[in-house]
Order: sequence, then structure tokens, then C-alpha cells
Amino acid sequence: MTASPRTVRVELGDRSYDILIGPGLIASAATEIAKRLKGRRMAVITDNNVAPLYLDALMDGLASVGIEAVSAILPAGEKTKSFEHLIPVCETILGARIERNDAVIALGGGVIGDLTGFAAGIVRRGSRFIQIPTSLLAQVDSSVGGKTGINSPHGKNLIGVFHQPDLVLADTDVLDTLSPREFRAGYAEVAKYGLIDKPDFFEWLEKNWQAVFAGGDARIEAVAISCQAKADVVAADERENGQRALLNLGHTFGHALEAATAYDGTRLVHGEGVSIGMVLAHQFSSRMNLASPDVAKRVESHLKTVGLPTSMDEIPGTLPPAEVLMDAIAQDKKVKGGKLTFILTRGLGEAFVADDVPASEVLSFLKEKHPA
Amino acid sequence: MTASPRTVRVELGDRSYDILIGPGLIASAATEIAKRLKGRRMAVITDNNVAPLYLDALMDGLASVGIEAVSAILPAGEKTKSFEHLIPVCETILGARIERNDAVIALGGGVIGDLTGFAAGIVRRGSRFIQIPTSLLAQVDSSVGGKTGINSPHGKNLIGVFHQPDLVLADTDVLDTLSPREFRAGYAEVAKYGLIDKPDFFEWLEKNWQAVFAGGDARIEAVAISCQAKADVVAADERENGQRALLNLGHTFGHALEAATAYDGTRLVHGEGVSIGMVLAHQFSSRMNLASPDVAKRVESHLKTVGLPTSMDEIPGTLPPAEVLMDAIAQDKKVKGGKLTFILTRGLGEAFVADDVPASEVLSFLKEKHPA
Ligand SMILES: NC(=O)c1ccc[n+]([C@@H]2O[C@H](COP(=O)([O-])OP(=O)(O)OC[C@H]3O[C@@H](n4cnc5c(N)ncnc54)[C@H](O)[C@@H]3O)[C@@H](O)[C@H]2O)c1
Ligand SMILES: NC(=O)c1ccc[n+]([C@@H]2O[C@H](COP(=O)([O-])OP(=O)(O)OC[C@H]3O[C@@H](n4cnc5c(N)ncnc54)[C@H](O)[C@@H]3O)[C@@H](O)[C@H]2O)c1
Ligand SMILES: [Zn+2]
Ligand SMILES: [Zn+2]
Repeated sequence: MTASPRTVRVELGDRSYDILIGPGLIASAATEIAKRLKGRRMAVITDNNVAPLYLDALMDGLASVGIEAVSAILPAGEKTKSFEHLIPVCETILGARIERNDAVIALGGGVIGDLTGFAAGIVRRGSRFIQIPTSLLAQVDSSVGGKTGINSPHGKNLIGVFHQPDLVLADTDVLDTLSPREFRAGYAEVAKYGLIDKPDFFEWLEKNWQAVFAGGDARIEAVAISCQAKADVVAADERENGQRALLNLGHTFGHALEAATAYDGTRLVHGEGVSIGMVLAHQFSSRMNLASPDVAKRVESHLKTVGLPTSMDEIPGTLPPAEVLMDAIAQDKKVKGGKLTFILTRGLGEAFVADDVPASEVLSFLKEKHPA
Repeated sequence: MTASPRTVRVELGDRSYDILIGPGLIASAATEIAKRLKGRRMAVITDNNVAPLYLDALMDGLASVGIEAVSAILPAGEKTKSFEHLIPVCETILGARIERNDAVIALGGGVIGDLTGFAAGIVRRGSRFIQIPTSLLAQVDSSVGGKTGINSPHGKNLIGVFHQPDLVLADTDVLDTLSPREFRAGYAEVAKYGLIDKPDFFEWLEKNWQAVFAGGDARIEAVAISCQAKADVVAADERENGQRALLNLGHTFGHALEAATAYDGTRLVHGEGVSIGMVLAHQFSSRMNLASPDVAKRVESHLKTVGLPTSMDEIPGTLPPAEVLMDAIAQDKKVKGGKLTFILTRGLGEAFVADDVPASEVLSFLKEKHPA
């Protein structure tokens, strides 16, 4: 007996699509796909952590509805988001002779989703694409919105395309096998939606976070609210010219920290960088007299309670000096004519885009938080 | 004293752009760019044939209007359209710290244009892009319309994106240094526009082709008419869902021949494949009782007169058997649910999209034209 999944629709004209959220969706994935797509050939891309847990179930399901599928298993981890792995994924898709109605399926976390979406976006100048996100971060963030890409030695996500999926299937049960650390990392993005413009949701999380971690209805609720929040922003601003930038709350600092730790997941994973980055963004906002220091303290306290890192000195190993972090920030995407764009806040759930933040202020703030 | 260049506008809403056509445009390129783009940083990508001829003039011009530019020189030839060369081009662009108003410039033939356009399309999920096409084929075809990409072991142009340029500068003088063979190859695409739907233009070419080869006003006229023809099709159907497919006249056969010769430019260059492909498409149309055999003879005769190959047995070396050519055709982009899509014709300048051509007919036609 399966309850029918919750549906969030991403409104993008003739490229609109559904996000289904609920328990047991891997088992019914093939049926949901066959309901919506006419294709008879698919290529499934996954990683070596997810494959032993869920690949067979998905492949069996596809076979049972008459879809011929091939699969490729990549090494898990951020380093997989590279040309080195993109190339064989493109060749796998081409080798599967995917035609116009067929699709490429990403089964995994944000790494698999970003890489596979990019491959789907460039094979035959754009192929159909289905996201089956298996990490919390991927379910509430990376699988929704069409941003895809890989990393470059020059920085994270610097190479990619906008390529919207045709369908997203978020099975909330699969999060049970996610490591607690990865679950917490994804939770940072859930909290982010509260901090952007939903103070009530943040308050609800402060009270119900344990139930979200445990599974069941609270988890489905949190995933659905997060997906809806992201879907709303994406529908309003697909190409990130304006409001979509708010989703980068915590990310400018976070990306710099990920670069500074060479994307080494044993030291820092994306959501942890975002957690520290959100705390820094709130502290910087209070330093700039935009928000009360109490807000930063409240944010820090909740993220600490769920077990997330909230300051740079919790990152194991040695961080480069503030000047080097600053350099990484300047090479980040959100730069216009030399000036820095940051997401700052005026209070709890009152984030805004500040596009003329003086680099000197950021540097002295970083030096204060991270003395060499 | 320079006459002002002719302008063809490609109408694509807020992504509309100008194609300037005329003599001496490399010399005034920087001025034309500075008139239209605010960027102060550019990355110029070219090849080792074009660089010694035109790179200095372009770089000097850019410096003289205050644009800081870096350049990268790639090996000339179709094999350069590969991931192997795409990767360092992306890194060059990122290393140049190109920001939102800056641009990537392709200076070269279709190979450089396709590869550089693809890199511009994926760096930071899309960067501004200027085409300075230096081959006839690039001026009348590949630089206009936004198709970019590279080849895969599975076939030509199978990996890429749609990415429109912001400006195209076609200097008709630079065609003087193009080898006669490459000029003829580009001329095949010029003739193609006549054969699609401009019988008068084809007739004009039959009379004036020597003047087009010689340079001067007839050449400018032929390039401008060709660009306008392509611009019209692109404006009507940017993503090749319908009429844009007509531009593939001669290309399904042509691509198969290019694949069969392993993209070895000493044996066959793109425009030569198109020339043979157009003759085959006309012959096949007459075999299918769609058009009179006289049309095929007239097309063959004109292409032969200008010095283009018009049959498979003119390709040096051994071609694989018809079955292998057929396989390459089936892997080409224009396949829907196993059925073959071809551009056929009902008469001179009366091409149309035929989307249910029986594979068996194509195979026996190929066997007839190319007995093993
Ligand atoms: N495209 C976007 O809009 C967007 C947004 C946010 C983040 N991202 C990207 O997402 C990536 C991070 O995503 P992530 O945190 O999912 O990383 P990830 O894909 O590396 O997954 C984290 C780890 O969990 C494992 N895993 C995934 N699902 C599992 C499951 N159900 N059970 C057991 N193990 C499982 C993975 O194998 C991996 O080891 C980053 O590269 C980031 O840049 C993209
Ligand atoms: N994107 C599109 O819509 C589109 C359309 C048609 C063709 N194409 C692609 O274009 C490519 C073929 O283009 P091409 O024929 O220009 O090939 P090319 O870029 O290889 O140029 C042909 C040769 O001429 C040389 N050359 C170029 N300009 C010169 C000049 N002014 N003087 C001296 N030498 C010069 C080049 O170095 C090269 O050796 C193919 O890869 C084809 O797939 C793309
Ligand atoms: Zn994130
Ligand atoms: Zn062509």
C-alpha cells in the first residue's frame, strides 16, 4: 500500500515539469516515467555508493515496463564532476542510441545529477533528462531548476549549461541509507529556504528537525516545502538574472571554502560549506549594520544543534590565508565588473541581493574570522 | 577608403544580432566590436593556418580600442573538434577572467567557430561570443545560427549546444588566402541555398560563379544572399524542429561520407561531402519519382564545373561498403523512432523534408551508386 506521492510543478511554459515526492518512489519510478515519456531507451548514470542499493530495483522496473536501459557507474565524490568523467558518460549515452523521446536518468546525489544533466544537455544539443535524486541535498536543491555542470581547476561549476529535467522523482525513503553527515549537509539547504524568505518555516524546523531526520511525514513535508520554494524562484527567474541569486545565500563563502579544501569531501562537503557560509553571511550582515547580531546567533545555534559546522575553524586541516579565500571569491560567478555580489540579510528570513559589496570589507571580515 | 559593410540582421528577439559582410573587416573588427559590446576582456581562439595571417591585426586592433585580449592557437583541421581541444579552450577562457560583458572570439573556419562557440556556450553556462569567420563555408553557414559543437567517435557534431553569437564579422578579403579547394568546398554551401528554395540564385551562380571566386562585388553579393537565407531560416526555426532541417540538404549523405573517411581532410572536406551529398539527394529524389532526372544532371553539371566532386568514386582511397554508410546514416541526428528523415526535392530549388524515407530504398540506392 503506497500513498500517492506529493507533486510540485515547476512552471516553465512548454518546459514545465513535475517533481514527485514520497516514499517508495524508486519502486514505482518506471511506471511514473512510462506515464509521462514515450521513449523506449534510457541510459542510467549512477555512482558506486548508490548502485548497490538502488540500481537493480530501478533497472528491473524499467525492464518491466518495456524500457531498454543501459547503466554506467561512476566513482562517488565531487571529483567526478570533471571532463574526465563527462566524456565517457556522453559516449555511454550515444552508445545507447538515445533518440528524441528517450531519456537520460541520473540516479544519485548532486554530483551525479549535475554531471548527468550536463551530459544530457550537450548530447545531440539536448536530450530528455530525468532526475532521481537520492541525497537530501539533491532532492531539495540540485535536482530542481536546470543548473548542470562540472568543476574546473579555476573553480566550482564553472562549466555547464541550463538544462531542465522532464521529471524529478524524490523517494524520501532512500534518505535512510544516507550517512548522517550527508543528511545534515542537505539539511543546510533546507534551512536555507527558511532563511531566504520563510521565517515561519525556519521556526518550524527549529521545533521539528528531529522528526525530519527520523523520516516519515515531517521529512516529506520539509522536502516538499523546499522543492516548492526552489520551484517558485526558478519559475520567476530561470536564468538567474535577479531573484534566483537569493538561492546562493551562504554559497559565495561556501564555494570559496570548498575551493580552499580542494573539494576534498573528507574535509568539507558542499552543504557543510553552505552551513558555514550562511553563518558568515549573517555575521557579515550584522557587521555591515544590516541585521541584528541576534539573528546570526540564532542561525548559528540551530545549525550547531543539528550537528552542522558553523565556523571555519571546524574544518579539519589548515585553511589558506584570508587573501587566498578572497581570491576564490573574486573568481566565483557572481562578479560584475570587479564588484562583489553577495546575498546578505536584513533579519530572519529577509535575505536580499547586495551587488556592490566592497571587497575590502569582506577581506577584513575574513581576516577577523580566520586569522592567519 | 573602406566602403561600409553590408549588414544582415538575425532576428531572434532579445538575442538578435548583426552579421557584417564586406572587405577589410578584420582591420575594423575592434571598432565594430567596441561599438556593440561593453566588455574590456576577450579571448581569441584561432588555428595555426589563420594565426600567422590575421591574428596580429586583430590583436593590435583590440589593444588599440583598450580591450585586453589573450589568444590560443589550435591545430587546424576537423580533428580539433574534440574534447581534447575543448578542455584547454575552456581553461583559456576561464584563465582570461572573462566577465558578463566580455566575449570569446572565434577567428577561423567552421572548426574554430564550432569548437569556440561550444566553449563559450558552456563556460559559466554561457558567455558572449563573436564569430570572425575566415573560410567561405564559415561565412555563409557555420558562423550563423548558433549551432556549436564537437565530434564524437559515434559521429559528427553529436555533442554541443545552441549558443547564438552576439556579432558576426565576415571579411570577404580574407577568402583570398583560402586554398582553392577550401573555397570550392564553401561554395557548395552557397549553391545549397539556391537548391533549397532560390532557383533564381542558383541560375545567377551558374552565370557568375567565376566572379564570385575572383572576389569583389559578386563575392560580397553571394555571401550576403547566403547569410540572409540562413538568417531567415534560423529566425523562423531556431531549434531545428521544422524548416531549419532544410539546411541539411546534402548533409545526411555528406556526413556519412565524412564518417566513412574518418574525417580525414586530405580525402574529403565537409563541403565536398555536401557537394556529393546534394547530387545524391537529387538523384535519389528522381529515383523516388519526385523530381525529373534533368534537375539532378543540372546540379551535378554546375558543381562539376566549379571543380567540386560529385560522386563517391571521386573520393581517394577505399570507401566502406554501402551497409556501413547506411549505419552511419542511421546514427545521424535526423532519426525518429527508427525511420529516416531526408531532405529531398521536387525540382530545382524545391527542397522539402521527407520524414519517412524507407531505409531499404536508401540502401539499394547506395549499393547502386557504390557497388562493393
Ligand atoms: N545544480 C544545482 O542547482 C546544485 C545545487 C546545489 C548543489 N549542487 C551540487 O551538488 C553536489 C553535492 O550534492 P550531494 O551532496 O548530493 O553530493 P553527492 O552526489 O556526492 O552525494 C553525497 C554522498 O552520498 C552518497 N549517496 C547519495 N545518495 C545516497 C543514498 N540514498 N544512500 C547512501 N548514499 C548515498 C553519494 O554516493 C555520495 O558519496 C555538489 O557538486 C554541488 O555543487 C548543485
Ligand atoms: N555550426 C554550423 O551550423 C555548421 C554548419 C556547417 C558546417 N559546420 C562545420 O564547419 C566545419 C568546416 O568548416 P571549414 O570548412 O571552415 O573548416 P576549417 O575550419 O577546417 O577551415 C578549412 C581550412 O582552411 C583554413 N583557413 C580558414 N580560413 C582561412 C583563410 N582565410 N586563409 C587561409 N586558410 C584558412 C583552416 O585553417 C583549415 O585548414 C565542419 O566541422 C562542419 O561540421 C558547422
Ligand atoms: Zn547548494
Ligand atoms: Zn554544411
